[in-house]
Amino acid sequence: MATKKVKAKSPVVKKLTVKKRPVILVTNDDGITAPGLRNLAETMMQFGDVVIVAPDSPQSAMGHAITINRPLRLDQVQLFDGIESWQCSGTPVDCVKLAVNKILKRKPDLCVSGVNHGSNSSINVIYSGTMSAAMEGAIEGIPSIGFSLLDYSHQADFSAARKVIEKIIKGVLKVGIPESSLLNVNIPNLPYRKIKGIKICRQARAKWAEKFDERKDPTQRSYYWLTGQFINQDTGQDTDESALANGYVSVVPILFDFTAHHTIPHFNSIDWNEA
Amino acid sequence: MATKKVKAKSPVVKKLTVKKRPVILVTNDDGITAPGLRNLAETMMQFGDVVIVAPDSPQSAMGHAITINRPLRLDQVQLFDGIESWQCSGTPVDCVKLAVNKILKRKPDLCVSGVNHGSNSSINVIYSGTMSAAMEGAIEGIPSIGFSLLDYSHQADFSAARKVIEKIIKGVLKVGIPESSLLNVNIPNLPYRKIKGIKICRQARAKWAEKFDERKDPTQRSYYWLTGQFINQDTGQDTDESALANGYVSVVPILFDFTAHHTIPHFNSIDWNEA
Repeated sequence: MATKKVKAKSPVVKKLTVKKRPVILVTNDDGITAPGLRNLAETMMQFGDVVIVAPDSPQSAMGHAITINRPLRLDQVQLFDGIESWQCSGTPVDCVKLAVNKILKRKPDLCVSGVNHGSNSSINVIYSGTMSAAMEGAIEGIPSIGFSLLDYSHQADFSAARKVIEKIIKGVLKVGIPESSLLNVNIPNLPYRKIKGIKICRQARAKWAEKFDERKDPTQRSYYWLTGQFINQDTGQDTDESALANGYVSVVPILFDFTAHHTIPHFNSIDWNEA
Repeated sequence: MATKKVKAKSPVVKKLTVKKRPVILVTNDDGITAPGLRNLAETMMQFGDVVIVAPDSPQSAMGHAITINRPLRLDQVQLFDGIESWQCSGTPVDCVKLAVNKILKRKPDLCVSGVNHGSNSSINVIYSGTMSAAMEGAIEGIPSIGFSLLDYSHQADFSAARKVIEKIIKGVLKVGIPESSLLNVNIPNLPYRKIKGIKICRQARAKWAEKFDERKDPTQRSYYWLTGQFINQDTGQDTDESALANGYVSVVPILFDFTAHHTIPHFNSIDWNEA
């Protein structure tokens, strides 16, 4: 994997000050039995004490949903050798909240989510339970990273992803993650030797062109399945889509301050007395 | 309601070019029977042809969840005089997708979501189904606004909120909404004459300090209810929390490009060869 160094300014970064062996929270949205979760947890064991708290069923596309209208179940499970593991009946964000508030004795030093089975690049970040779990970690003040592999299969090969994750954790631990941000890492579905490198990118301006497949149930009542096609009309070479299409791992730093700061003067031009 | 004018630069704004009577999509996350929805829909009727597509059950805190693991139901209902209305078994975001793809003959000129029963200021924007529906509208290229009233009660008084919404729609229609952004409007729970004005704000850096209330079910198995306290440590006077605390309506322009652009040089400083 080829890499290159770029000179940069120094922003304000809250550095990790880890006195004891790091505690690493691992979660996902594909559920506790997903191979991506096991691969991520096993990869993280070299960096600290791993605790898994993951949904007890698939929770893809749950976005930043939390469970407020029904109670949550939380059970310790024995699935992985040497890793404390819990399954929760809620969403990925619920898992992070429960981990921080009920399970872990202290705030974890790192929160990693994934490895998602499928891409969370571009606009997918908004719908992704994987990335929302990482975002919740960041809101809690924990350095957080979401990982996704561009292979939807349950039988996906995670061997290259594991090497990439190791490299990214090592690199990021050196410089830290600036406050109020987290990382969205997408890994192309390629053997490790074919991955060209790691690119820091911006989120591509792409969208889904949806269709709803209309069907009839046995009583002839209609029901609808969401289907769709991913459309990327963003030709920028600095995007995650461009990096992935060219065989690079994309790393997009993202924020949970959604304010469109640059548009504030525009809206301040409104004369509310005349409105 | 006192208001003041502020001079501002001119950003690139995609202006609305409405040839026919505008089509206005109204949705929410509290469900089709919520009084906030009815109040919003009735207020919007003066601006165009209103079509309601809303969840058939409460979907608060669903964030940007979409339904991909089960089919959706969609049924036309007769609940509001003179307003075409549909209920959907999915999330707020599903409602917007179904409206655009299955129900409306053309892309709506405006998408409004709410009026939410309760605040969506500050970090709440991330968990909010109301705001995610508006965000989905914006992703679809529709000028979109989410409205929330700071009163959780089903019996809330929407009379001041209706006047505020009218004023905001009139003001925003004059200047347009810049591309890739939408508005998060929160209305204090005050009589109209006590509302001091409308402030364009940034999202306050606040968070929830959660607790999980642990209880035992009849078989003595534990279950957990999410509870929490809202903590705002952001003393900025330009925040939505500050505006609301001082009796103003807060208007936060938000983005669905989550990229933390200012941190890209920081991460570009990583030497991946050494990682």
